[in-house]
Amino acid sequence: MMPEIPYKTYLAESEMPKAWYNVKAHMKGAHDPFLNPATRKPCAADELKRVFCDECVEQELNDADESIPIPDGILDFYKMFRPSPLVRAYFLERALDTPAEIYYKFEGNNTSGSHKLNSAAAQAYYAKAQGLKRITTETGAGQWGTALAMAAAFFGLELDVFMVKVSAEQKPHRREVIRTYGANVISSPSDTTAAGRKILAEFPETGGSLGCAISEAVEKAANTKSCRYVLGSVLDHVLLHQSVIGAECKAAFDKYGVAPDVIIGCCGGGSNFGGLIAPYMGDRLQGKNNIEFIGVEPASCPSLTRGKFAYDFCDSARITPLAKMYTLGCGFMPPSAHAGGLRYHGMSPIVSRLYNDGYIKAIAVEQKAVFDAAVTFAKCEGILPAPESSHAIRAAVDKALECKRTGEKKRILFGLTGTGYFDLAAYKKYNDGEMSDNVPTDADLQKGFDTIPII
Amino acid sequence: MMPEIPYKTYLAESEMPKAWYNVKAHMKGAHDPFLNPATRKPCAADELKRVFCDECVEQELNDADESIPIPDGILDFYKMFRPSPLVRAYFLERALDTPAEIYYKFEGNNTSGSHKLNSAAAQAYYAKAQGLKRITTETGAGQWGTALAMAAAFFGLELDVFMVKVSAEQKPHRREVIRTYGANVISSPSDTTAAGRKILAEFPETGGSLGCAISEAVEKAANTKSCRYVLGSVLDHVLLHQSVIGAECKAAFDKYGVAPDVIIGCCGGGSNFGGLIAPYMGDRLQGKNNIEFIGVEPASCPSLTRGKFAYDFCDSARITPLAKMYTLGCGFMPPSAHAGGLRYHGMSPIVSRLYNDGYIKAIAVEQKAVFDAAVTFAKCEGILPAPESSHAIRAAVDKALECKRTGEKKRILFGLTGTGYFDLAAYKKYNDGEMSDNVPTDADLQKGFDTIPII
Repeated sequence: MMPEIPYKTYLAESEMPKAWYNVKAHMKGAHDPFLNPATRKPCAADELKRVFCDECVEQELNDADESIPIPDGILDFYKMFRPSPLVRAYFLERALDTPAEIYYKFEGNNTSGSHKLNSAAAQAYYAKAQGLKRITTETGAGQWGTALAMAAAFFGLELDVFMVKVSAEQKPHRREVIRTYGANVISSPSDTTAAGRKILAEFPETGGSLGCAISEAVEKAANTKSCRYVLGSVLDHVLLHQSVIGAECKAAFDKYGVAPDVIIGCCGGGSNFGGLIAPYMGDRLQGKNNIEFIGVEPASCPSLTRGKFAYDFCDSARITPLAKMYTLGCGFMPPSAHAGGLRYHGMSPIVSRLYNDGYIKAIAVEQKAVFDAAVTFAKCEGILPAPESSHAIRAAVDKALECKRTGEKKRILFGLTGTGYFDLAAYKKYNDGEMSDNVPTDADLQKGFDTIPII
Repeated sequence: MMPEIPYKTYLAESEMPKAWYNVKAHMKGAHDPFLNPATRKPCAADELKRVFCDECVEQELNDADESIPIPDGILDFYKMFRPSPLVRAYFLERALDTPAEIYYKFEGNNTSGSHKLNSAAAQAYYAKAQGLKRITTETGAGQWGTALAMAAAFFGLELDVFMVKVSAEQKPHRREVIRTYGANVISSPSDTTAAGRKILAEFPETGGSLGCAISEAVEKAANTKSCRYVLGSVLDHVLLHQSVIGAECKAAFDKYGVAPDVIIGCCGGGSNFGGLIAPYMGDRLQGKNNIEFIGVEPASCPSLTRGKFAYDFCDSARITPLAKMYTLGCGFMPPSAHAGGLRYHGMSPIVSRLYNDGYIKAIAVEQKAVFDAAVTFAKCEGILPAPESSHAIRAAVDKALECKRTGEKKRILFGLTGTGYFDLAAYKKYNDGEMSDNVPTDADLQKGFDTIPII
């Protein structure tokens, strides 16, 4: 007999996961090491610790332990905005008239508006525990900057957020949330760093870029006493922190004695998808399940489906270590009309390796279809989704419609990473019928590939 | 022994209230009837049913039944965004170093961003059940318009939202959320109604007003087939729907065998406060508790603390029935520098009567102090509160600090009605040090009192 699944499942405080899930413990060999950009030799832990907090570096390099305990100070912080609900999308199922069961894990019910707070909480905690006074980061759209500002305020750390200038101007409200949490927002490029001054001298009118903002944040951290730099995606330790999403999903499903047949997540840098699938992927790698894992990326920035598996810089300014990952080239620029987020040129090394080894499928979806699904979802389920999350909604809806054709009662889980409250300019474009699809040509991609360094 | 209270309590689906709580059943006699604006005689049910949905009118006039069952169709909708969490504010308690226990009921975890959805869901359901095709309403800041758009989309109703022109222009994102849910947003005054055309002819450059938007929405409903008008606050049936907030609070506290000593809510039209206190107030009226109920209003719009208990129009355009309530006069305009919401000139007749009878205390707070409390709360508890809700936060913090001085371990509950994601222009003003307090002088108030009709 099928168990009765309520619309929402919130774990009780006592049921919340006490450990993160390190999927690398079950991957065949660690993924390829980071390379020092100057020497092109593997980065030593000490090199990384000059940039990142010590404990994050330890986690970054830990390929052995499946279970990594979450410190009490982070568990406390998690209680502020977790557990997130696992929702059975009964209304969406009804609207689609599908025999499939659709579930989503909703990570947007916090003021940062996304899952980013899971890692911000951890990284701010470790910075504080290490005795640091200050951290730096960059932010584009602003979700990560908001999340880290909340965490820094909670743990009493000073924070400098280098916000891409054009974003700071186009999204003044995001900037204001970050300021409200007490962080210092600096439009990038700025005259506060050598990197910023150099760009400003060359391109006085530039609106900035994530690459430039990363350069400034890293430089500021390196030149400031008791300070480190913090990154919100891509890296293994970020995926580790995000595994709390998957761990909560599994705990909730286990209560009902069921498991998903398909798990779907949107993929930008890969931290949400990697975190969502972690425990189920760990089981899969041990031959304990046969779940279909699907990463969804925008057709305009198709790193998994059309990229190359190669060493590349993590930033467009070419100052970070090199990572082995699926990449469109650190110089790739997604089409400017793209409104749907997930604009990163590369992909988490863990997700990249799992994809390369055949454990993950990837699909690319076009933005009009993404917003179609977003609006259907908003009307059925009452949550206005972030454009990024809506990539996963699109794929989940398509999978449910496929089940309608085949009659299969598959259990579909997708990650609803965030809300779209600060993305209404994109929704306006869609509502006004002014949204276009933007798929790069092979020639566009080749320009990006030409920027991948030859190792 | 004190029970262990978790950080958050979510009722299970099976524990969610199945009925609303009608506090009027325990009030000494019904409150004074609405008066027809033309005849100044009590409105008959049939008159009201030309404007409002039949079932809402029945509820409006029901002074007898304590418990009014929530129809299944509304219970289903409630599952989409309820239960809302009852949160023990451990982090705020720690920051204030108070012996008091602070709890808040958080109603902002839905896309409308506030408690308004509780009544929007009910009113849209009843419109649909009555066989209507269309509803109309007005919206100022946009929370109510968003809530009703969500409900109309869910139940498949057409919706016209008359949005105060200056709000539609200053808050284009709010407007866009409403459009995304499929509602028709009309900037008011518009040329689609006689009322709008009249105002436009007289004042071509006007930015509109809530009074004018109400006139247009009521006229549109009256002149449209299969259509009624829907209101988001003040009225008894709206407070009834909002009693789900208090009923969930009571169910959660009852699980732990405890009850609050103080209940605090912000007061604009009174629907949130009236809903929050309903079941506890019902017990109080029966002599079963001695809870301190505190309504908090802005010092700039002090209808309870400085208003008159009199018959007045519910709108500034003087087209609605007259209600007996605390009022500053339907022509009162709060100071323009006021950023904190709760700008309504009157107060729910139920709340007004309870206040007049001495069951409720009222305090007025100034806006800088409100934003101080909002930011403290945001940093401790992780939620950026709506300015409206922050009035309650201010009062709860002050009460907790009073307990610190006296050593009392009071249990304080306040209503956190919504999030401030669309109020960042106000936060910017605060962050930039440009927010001022604005308390009307006695002469300002007298101008408003002069607009109260003589009955």
